[in-house]
Amino acid sequence: MRAVDIIMKKRNGAELSDVEIRFLIEGYVKGEIPDYQVSSLLMAIFFKGMTPAETASLTNIMLNSGDRMDLSGIAGPFIDKHSTGGVGDKISLPLAPIVAACGVKVPMMSGRALGHTGGTLDKLESIPGYFTSLELSAFRKGIIEDGFAMTGQTSRVVPADKKLYALRDVTATVESIPLITASILSKKVAEGADGIVFDVKCGSGAFMKTLDDARSLATSLVATGSAMGKQVVAVLTDMSQPLGYKVGNFLEIEETLDCLEGKGPGDVMELVYRLGSWMLVLGGVAKNLDEGRVRCEEVVASGEALDLFYRNVSRQGGNIAEMLYRRNTWRSEHVRELRAERSGYLSSIDALEIGLAGVYLGVGRNRTEDAVSPTAGFVFNKKRSDRVEKGELIATLYGKDEESLEPAYTMAASAISISDSVPPASALILEEITSQ
Amino acid sequence: MRAVDIIMKKRNGAELSDVEIRFLIEGYVKGEIPDYQVSSLLMAIFFKGMTPAETASLTNIMLNSGDRMDLSGIAGPFIDKHSTGGVGDKISLPLAPIVAACGVKVPMMSGRALGHTGGTLDKLESIPGYFTSLELSAFRKGIIEDGFAMTGQTSRVVPADKKLYALRDVTATVESIPLITASILSKKVAEGADGIVFDVKCGSGAFMKTLDDARSLATSLVATGSAMGKQVVAVLTDMSQPLGYKVGNFLEIEETLDCLEGKGPGDVMELVYRLGSWMLVLGGVAKNLDEGRVRCEEVVASGEALDLFYRNVSRQGGNIAEMLYRRNTWRSEHVRELRAERSGYLSSIDALEIGLAGVYLGVGRNRTEDAVSPTAGFVFNKKRSDRVEKGELIATLYGKDEESLEPAYTMAASAISISDSVPPASALILEEITSQ
Repeated sequence: MRAVDIIMKKRNGAELSDVEIRFLIEGYVKGEIPDYQVSSLLMAIFFKGMTPAETASLTNIMLNSGDRMDLSGIAGPFIDKHSTGGVGDKISLPLAPIVAACGVKVPMMSGRALGHTGGTLDKLESIPGYFTSLELSAFRKGIIEDGFAMTGQTSRVVPADKKLYALRDVTATVESIPLITASILSKKVAEGADGIVFDVKCGSGAFMKTLDDARSLATSLVATGSAMGKQVVAVLTDMSQPLGYKVGNFLEIEETLDCLEGKGPGDVMELVYRLGSWMLVLGGVAKNLDEGRVRCEEVVASGEALDLFYRNVSRQGGNIAEMLYRRNTWRSEHVRELRAERSGYLSSIDALEIGLAGVYLGVGRNRTEDAVSPTAGFVFNKKRSDRVEKGELIATLYGKDEESLEPAYTMAASAISISDSVPPASALILEEITSQ
Repeated sequence: MRAVDIIMKKRNGAELSDVEIRFLIEGYVKGEIPDYQVSSLLMAIFFKGMTPAETASLTNIMLNSGDRMDLSGIAGPFIDKHSTGGVGDKISLPLAPIVAACGVKVPMMSGRALGHTGGTLDKLESIPGYFTSLELSAFRKGIIEDGFAMTGQTSRVVPADKKLYALRDVTATVESIPLITASILSKKVAEGADGIVFDVKCGSGAFMKTLDDARSLATSLVATGSAMGKQVVAVLTDMSQPLGYKVGNFLEIEETLDCLEGKGPGDVMELVYRLGSWMLVLGGVAKNLDEGRVRCEEVVASGEALDLFYRNVSRQGGNIAEMLYRRNTWRSEHVRELRAERSGYLSSIDALEIGLAGVYLGVGRNRTEDAVSPTAGFVFNKKRSDRVEKGELIATLYGKDEESLEPAYTMAASAISISDSVPPASALILEEITSQ
């Protein structure tokens, strides 16, 4: 078997066998196949795609390149949620305790902020004392005792993905549906979940800008995940404006507490309940989405979900008293107000530009080694479709330092559009794709 | 400027600027841009192509990566011919002295046999004593005194092509019209010719199997060559059966002598005269193709062309007496006859299979370091469309050793088809593409 023949086969649009994909990818991870052959294969895949069978092969080969989370001996079901990343997307934080309170285990591995998208680990670490690098034993204990735990990925999980992603990043081969699918799924399956609910974001602040692209990725995730024997659902959701009224690290912890007290922003509550309902259905705890929604609302109303969140904070080193003391007051001293330049209706709060402005403020980072600020971010007073009068406060910006405010303000101001008429209504949940 | 952005631009189908192509290719040759980025760019070019302006940029950058033949101080015009490679393609050998005898200088740099295609240098070196590695001063002297000289390329000519070709060869990016164009043209322009006649072969024994592919390459060569200020013509010719009656190294020297004596095979004479006529037109020595043809026929009839060939052989160390003594008798002792299995008409002598059988016999080579045999090859008694009776001799095979005969015979036998009816007539010269 020669690498060049396999590259040519893909280049010519034929389907590669499991053995051929294994030859190249395992060989690459072992250092036997040179990167210049893999990068030309990746570009050929960018143009010619992969069948569900090929994508499942690639995902399995990547998955088997590293460690898998050992959940043996713990009673399931294990259901996880994965978001393709957005702005103000704190959904994982209230969702995990709500679903756990309903009796479904959530082994959640999250990521960090990069570029304009936020990171669950960075938000959690804004809680004083909270740590996110759990040993396997601590992670297992959290799942057993609280029904969920929150951690980051170790370098031993899917090393093939790290090597391939680094190569894709410098060879313009990131934006390929099968390669994205294998990258996401290999990591999620390595976490040991029986089922996964994907929140595939769509719009300016999302990786997938158009509904067509989001639908392609969602379909590929569901088809490939199903081919690997997992229960998979994908929910396509709007990411053309930030989720909720707060974008930041500790700011989103505050909104998480609001949610768990049943008084979170409408869009955040809607999405948490929808994704939670799906997780309960996949976990066999609810017969259908309506029943799932009722269960989720119950554990919020009863305070059980909030209680589990506190238990998790405490277990992972967070100081609950300090968190509650700082709630709604812990803000950077570097403040700038964004006010309406004219009267009208807010027709757009562009999520990408808010996300990029957030990088200036210190919410996110451009390079993985950069630090983030717990107290930086945005507090919005208005959302899309709201009426605003000239000079009225739309948002308050909190920056990590004084210099960050000017560029962030300029970018945030350009994210805002005001129109004379009420903009057309838009849905938050756009489509749902299941394996049936 | 970042390499990944340039790769992405090409991947998305946009036109790269000269500066962008220069950044990547010059950087690659200097070792500053890694091969894994170049290979993904090459694959993107395979799928998205290049405009004539991009191809001209690439060609110029490759050209300037190395030495150019210094023909300064020699009176022109300098016109060269380049064939994309075939089987039995000895055209350069009679063509150069014919054109030189008509007053056009031919600075000819040729290649070696590889795979099923033959090599002019290997054929010349079958003349006892002939050497093909000329110093620049000897090459210049040959052109000044004989009107032409025959040499190989030094490693200092277009080093970028050697590096890029080696990468293309292992990344399935060889078959790209703009990349082939830049590879061919950069080397031809480095030779210093003012005009180039391309013989673009088409058919089983050619690199381009279909007329569409051959036309694409021919059009690209003419467009790019013209954009670089050269006079360029491309002649599309049939390579579905070998040219002439002899395929081999010394065997093709014999057929060259036949041509220069005006009694070569019809197809070889036709092609030599057509390409020669074009070279005279490009060189301004003939007003049109008809006049060019008359001039070519004259220098053959007068013996001037044969005389120049002898002068060249002598100048490059060849022993004329020995060459003429061995003519039509110097054959390998390992012989096998290929006879008609039934009566009918020869409907096919597949050039690719004959070429590959020739590699077994020792005419060509699979790896550049392999040696070739001067006395191996085929002598055909029949050509396509000829009537054959069962048992009649179609061809005689001469092998470098006894073991080579069996596999070569099997392959050559499979190249032959016999039909009951006369096969449809087919043209040798299929199309001609000029810059107008």
